[in-house]
Amino acid sequence: MDDRSHFNALFEPRSIAFIGASASVTKWGFNILHHLVKGGFEGGIYPVNPQGGAWFGRKIYTSLAEVPRPVDLAIIVVPKELVPGTMRECAAAGIRAAVVITAGFSETGAGGAALEREVVSIARETGIRIVGPNTMGIFSAFPSPVQAVMMSTAIRQGGVAVVSQSGNLGTSITYRFNRREIGISRLVSSGNEADMKVEDYLEYLESDDATRIICLYVEGLRQGRRFIDTARRITLTKPIILLKGGTGSIGAGAAMSHTGALAGSFSVFQAMCRQANIILAETIDEMVDVAGFLLTQPEVTGKRVGIVTQGGGWGVITADLCEAAGLELPPLDEKVVAELDGFLPPFWSRRNPIDLVAPGRVSMVTDSIAALLEHADMDAIICLGLGYMTARARRWLDSPVLPRDVMEKPARQMIDAEMELLDLVASQIRRFNKPIIPVIDLVAFDEVPDVNIVSYLDGRGIMSYSSPEQAVGALVMALEYYRKRGERAARDGA
Amino acid sequence: MDDRSHFNALFEPRSIAFIGASASVTKWGFNILHHLVKGGFEGGIYPVNPQGGAWFGRKIYTSLAEVPRPVDLAIIVVPKELVPGTMRECAAAGIRAAVVITAGFSETGAGGAALEREVVSIARETGIRIVGPNTMGIFSAFPSPVQAVMMSTAIRQGGVAVVSQSGNLGTSITYRFNRREIGISRLVSSGNEADMKVEDYLEYLESDDATRIICLYVEGLRQGRRFIDTARRITLTKPIILLKGGTGSIGAGAAMSHTGALAGSFSVFQAMCRQANIILAETIDEMVDVAGFLLTQPEVTGKRVGIVTQGGGWGVITADLCEAAGLELPPLDEKVVAELDGFLPPFWSRRNPIDLVAPGRVSMVTDSIAALLEHADMDAIICLGLGYMTARARRWLDSPVLPRDVMEKPARQMIDAEMELLDLVASQIRRFNKPIIPVIDLVAFDEVPDVNIVSYLDGRGIMSYSSPEQAVGALVMALEYYRKRGERAARDGA
Repeated sequence: MDDRSHFNALFEPRSIAFIGASASVTKWGFNILHHLVKGGFEGGIYPVNPQGGAWFGRKIYTSLAEVPRPVDLAIIVVPKELVPGTMRECAAAGIRAAVVITAGFSETGAGGAALEREVVSIARETGIRIVGPNTMGIFSAFPSPVQAVMMSTAIRQGGVAVVSQSGNLGTSITYRFNRREIGISRLVSSGNEADMKVEDYLEYLESDDATRIICLYVEGLRQGRRFIDTARRITLTKPIILLKGGTGSIGAGAAMSHTGALAGSFSVFQAMCRQANIILAETIDEMVDVAGFLLTQPEVTGKRVGIVTQGGGWGVITADLCEAAGLELPPLDEKVVAELDGFLPPFWSRRNPIDLVAPGRVSMVTDSIAALLEHADMDAIICLGLGYMTARARRWLDSPVLPRDVMEKPARQMIDAEMELLDLVASQIRRFNKPIIPVIDLVAFDEVPDVNIVSYLDGRGIMSYSSPEQAVGALVMALEYYRKRGERAARDGA
Repeated sequence: MDDRSHFNALFEPRSIAFIGASASVTKWGFNILHHLVKGGFEGGIYPVNPQGGAWFGRKIYTSLAEVPRPVDLAIIVVPKELVPGTMRECAAAGIRAAVVITAGFSETGAGGAALEREVVSIARETGIRIVGPNTMGIFSAFPSPVQAVMMSTAIRQGGVAVVSQSGNLGTSITYRFNRREIGISRLVSSGNEADMKVEDYLEYLESDDATRIICLYVEGLRQGRRFIDTARRITLTKPIILLKGGTGSIGAGAAMSHTGALAGSFSVFQAMCRQANIILAETIDEMVDVAGFLLTQPEVTGKRVGIVTQGGGWGVITADLCEAAGLELPPLDEKVVAELDGFLPPFWSRRNPIDLVAPGRVSMVTDSIAALLEHADMDAIICLGLGYMTARARRWLDSPVLPRDVMEKPARQMIDAEMELLDLVASQIRRFNKPIIPVIDLVAFDEVPDVNIVSYLDGRGIMSYSSPEQAVGALVMALEYYRKRGERAARDGA
């Protein structure tokens, strides 16, 4: 039995049967079907319910036997007692993979566990592979979007795979990526893992060309050795970022009650992950921060950081953060100071952090960055204080005490100047092939789209951060990943 | 000389002279004047510039001598060479306080330092007190808004005072409070502190009834003993939250170059702050998180935390966070389990965290909270998973595959149900007089206003958090503050 074919049925189905379709808006049989239809899947979607009827203009089939062939994937939301029979009908219909949303199995005690064993034995007998039960579902971006998941927001297509032993955490992670315009390749809420486990999904993702980065939320592993061996291979080419749940004794107990996963010793697990060069995130925000860095910035090869700031205080706290994180802030030699003296205002800081005070022209920012990368041998630049020009210009246009017709032109000029600066920074990242990390602590998600420079950069595939601690945190984790990967490559090559 | 009268001139001026007014949009003489006018100050605002003319319909006075009396406060943005003369004119006009925005003083070297000494000696001679020079300005909310500051966003009026040795950090902090609908009483960018220092502002805030919480960004203190003694008195009634810049050697050097502040030993400073019960925040986000908690939640008196979650994974990681932070998650005794069995679905977790799985009715959430606070003697509740109902209903209304007229009613019902839940939680906070902390990790600032439950709670004065780590962090810092305050009160009373 070739596992891969089941994964193809799961992530690249030709068509999908949705068993337990409902027109009642409070049911998952309504909501997940809605997300699947709205998601734009290009193959057939066949709602099934013995009561028949229609689902907002689509036919509801009264049984799976009626559904046109071929059908590769079943999404199952029927009551738990009906799952075994449904599985047999799936087998008869030639279905190779099933996502069992239905809950009430091993997570609920002995009776549920017996039912789960029955479902697994049918799966073994029929050759169907199962996601779940008790899963929030899956999303697959390619070749055509399969959004068979409880999460209601439209999920972007992209290069990050998310496998989560908690559907809610998987949703939270995906939502955060979505907000930053970072797309998902595959999302799996692994549920009770009665059949397929994190270890299986990880093996699939190893050879999945659509996936560039893998994010995992793990409460407990059933096959720890296999997991670590697979991860160790993968991290040579694709980063894995992992958040561990159940690190404390109470959390571990809650995890046990949540998905039946045995958490084990966190310190042992941590050591094994480090050895496999898995990036350990402490929070899902950290996960998104470092994933965004790895996806959008060039490889960082050393710890020499240059700071270019449009405000003194930001430079001070960013220098503190870099130093505390073990990064270096090399002093500027005379040659570089002389170079910067050539175009900076007379009272610039003359040290790293380079405090531009209030730069008169946007070129002062980019010329400073260029000087640091060309002449001071920095490995990465943190660029602080972007967004102020746009924010100010925006306030001019909104102002009840300024005539809009007078302000229109200077506001547009100021916004354009900052957009030009962002474009220049983007081209410098390519030109120098070193990370230049924008920190934008003012203009945020809530700004109107046409002046939202966070989205402007997101849309150009450049991750910005809303605080220096996020930027420094992501930089340090990425640096450590690349360093260990390089060391292993050198060892393996030697 | 009574210091207080100068502070009244600064924060509660009858009228304001703006010296260096400009119609050129790139100048601070334009922008700060704009913010001041737009801010809605009810007294007279008198723009001054020797060239005269008009500023968008307002007369520009050619000299301070022309300006109607009384005028209490001067905002000075003239070139640095003109500051000494301007100060003398201010004295002649009866002005008692001046905010010297102009830069180019001691922060730029020996020449600037000499000019700064001259300005200070004129201040001493004339009795004018100075903010700055090299300041981003001030904001005062009461009795009438004085927004004489570079920050362009309209600042909300409220109970948080912000004093910052970096104008940019002061702006970043204020902006973050603004976003959460938490208002500011006074904001001071203290600049070079040639005359008035953090220590002076702190003394003023001690007896400022408008200020309930004080937030400080400090790079270095000139009068450390006075600062700590004042803070020690204040923290008996008002919390002080402090972020220290220049904690590392490079950051300290940058601070020196930034405002001339000597950073000193951070570990000694930290110990002194702890002794004075100053809350030390590591980031400005942490500052806003704990300030929001202190402002909007009842006093937390112990470390027993109950977790009520609408998703298992969130409960697991929140339990981990609580345990790591030294909080207690007491197990549920039989009586409480029986109580909860009465209304929860059969497969709820039967432990703390209480995992409601998918609650059928919103009352399951509030009844669980009530059971924990009435019968399980918890000191605080963390409530996870809010926002999903609203998000889902929102997606129904947006959906291209669902008829809006059919979805309107159920969507409205679902949104109303979640809003009702939020109102119930708000009333439970009052009823039990214990913190109930909502964590909303999905619906964020970018949601449209009518379904943005973050704003809905912000508007009702209840701080929510977008991740459990923020909620736990704020809870722990607040608990520590109240504990130490209680111990000192008990000692002083004994």
